[in-house]
Amino acid sequence: MPMPEHFTDRLLEAIETKGAPVCIGIDPVAERLPKGLGVEPVEAIENFSCAVLDAIAEFVPAVKVQLACFERYRAAGYAAFDRVVRRAASLGLIVIADAKRNDIAISAAHYAAGLLEAADAVTVGTYLGRDSLEPFLNIAATEGKGLFALVRTSNPDGDALQSLQLADGRRVSEAVADLVADAGCLCRGTSGFSLLGAVVGATKVEEIASLRRRMPQQIFLIPGIGAQGAALGDILGSFDESGHGALVTASRSVIYAFDSSDKCPWARAVAGAARLLRDELAELLARRRDS
Amino acid sequence: MPMPEHFTDRLLEAIETKGAPVCIGIDPVAERLPKGLGVEPVEAIENFSCAVLDAIAEFVPAVKVQLACFERYRAAGYAAFDRVVRRAASLGLIVIADAKRNDIAISAAHYAAGLLEAADAVTVGTYLGRDSLEPFLNIAATEGKGLFALVRTSNPDGDALQSLQLADGRRVSEAVADLVADAGCLCRGTSGFSLLGAVVGATKVEEIASLRRRMPQQIFLIPGIGAQGAALGDILGSFDESGHGALVTASRSVIYAFDSSDKCPWARAVAGAARLLRDELAELLARRRDS
Repeated sequence: MPMPEHFTDRLLEAIETKGAPVCIGIDPVAERLPKGLGVEPVEAIENFSCAVLDAIAEFVPAVKVQLACFERYRAAGYAAFDRVVRRAASLGLIVIADAKRNDIAISAAHYAAGLLEAADAVTVGTYLGRDSLEPFLNIAATEGKGLFALVRTSNPDGDALQSLQLADGRRVSEAVADLVADAGCLCRGTSGFSLLGAVVGATKVEEIASLRRRMPQQIFLIPGIGAQGAALGDILGSFDESGHGALVTASRSVIYAFDSSDKCPWARAVAGAARLLRDELAELLARRRDS
Repeated sequence: MPMPEHFTDRLLEAIETKGAPVCIGIDPVAERLPKGLGVEPVEAIENFSCAVLDAIAEFVPAVKVQLACFERYRAAGYAAFDRVVRRAASLGLIVIADAKRNDIAISAAHYAAGLLEAADAVTVGTYLGRDSLEPFLNIAATEGKGLFALVRTSNPDGDALQSLQLADGRRVSEAVADLVADAGCLCRGTSGFSLLGAVVGATKVEEIASLRRRMPQQIFLIPGIGAQGAALGDILGSFDESGHGALVTASRSVIYAFDSSDKCPWARAVAGAARLLRDELAELLARRRDS
């Protein structure tokens, strides 16, 4: 078996192929799905997720699958999650498991081994410090997989802790950024980016450029576009001068696009929303490169 | 169906019955188990966990089951976790799912619904702020269940973030303690304790009394006894004057007690270690009450 390619090299190649760094969040909630997808909720969310993947795979390089939506249904949900991830992989999509796991020692290693067996990357918490990241880093480095560490989240209450000012002048989120930059510095691909990326919410516009300076080697996974209120123009500071270094995530505004357009089959509305997001971001990045 | 009793009232009653606030951590790792428990690792950890539960149920009020050890084996592991939790419940044990989940909105609600369907309580992260706790609080309050929020962890690197000094003089962990105290203040049982407890590592001896003052209504879940190096005497500051308010957790020093004693069947060594811990803590608390 050949040595696995570095995660960031695979990711950048997929972005190049599809035309823009867009990631669609697969967060299926039973109550919001089109009718007729299954008798049981867990069956409906699996069928919906697979149909969404089929619809968007042509247009986007990556998907982020929310574990909670599946874990809601316990072992049956976990089995469905595995099948959804396999479907995404078979469609050539890079799959990020949005798990936000955070534990230490053998427990962290267990989470890493289980989740990275299926997905290409996983989101991880940071509150427990560097020894909660190391077991994930070891397994990801060996297997050619990636991680995205929670640095600055897009929810309103993220500020309660993340915005607090430290005695040394940094905010808490900046201290976490420094910790992540340091922990990831030995795991870079040929692109120069580290397999340890960072979750940075799109709604924190005024902080994105400063976090980019603190984490030059981290690929930013940026949730909060669309339904959470941020616009694409807000997050341009997360890209470097060549237009690399971020992966923009939209979920509800794409996977529920049929809510506001009942004039075509639902999966076509989803595909259209994904393509539109891809085209808009590609154009914004091209205009920025040329200016 | 009668209204569910408040979680902390049930917990305090169980502690009273068994004689001391001891919780055993069920963190089974396939490589450390006695031989002959199963062909597949997931079968062996399930059989081991159930045998440990049978051995200790007479002596302790509660167990904390580590999700990571089961999730390592994906859907099969999740199914095994559910059976282990049911076994613990059938033995009259209070079951805490050690999941450390942290997400927002519907994702947090999904985690809460899934995990609290099985267990009596669940550990949750705090980095995402109060809106990551609310969905858990809502479901726990309705169902008579409990939560333990990560405030101060027992691992050495927890200091990297949790010990940082804020501009207002508090440490980061103290700011999180204030957030937890505030979020939990409306959810108290007849005992006065909130269904929202706090994880406070036993290894952070010098901080325990100060965190107790900041969180008078939180039951502390205290890992780090035994294998992680802390002694029972170190954590007396986490109890209030009547000897209430904390649940002391030991894992490896109890569930692998047979490592250092091959003179009796392994399950008897485990039972003996649990009973010894219970007796030691009961004696310490009685001596403190009488002094």
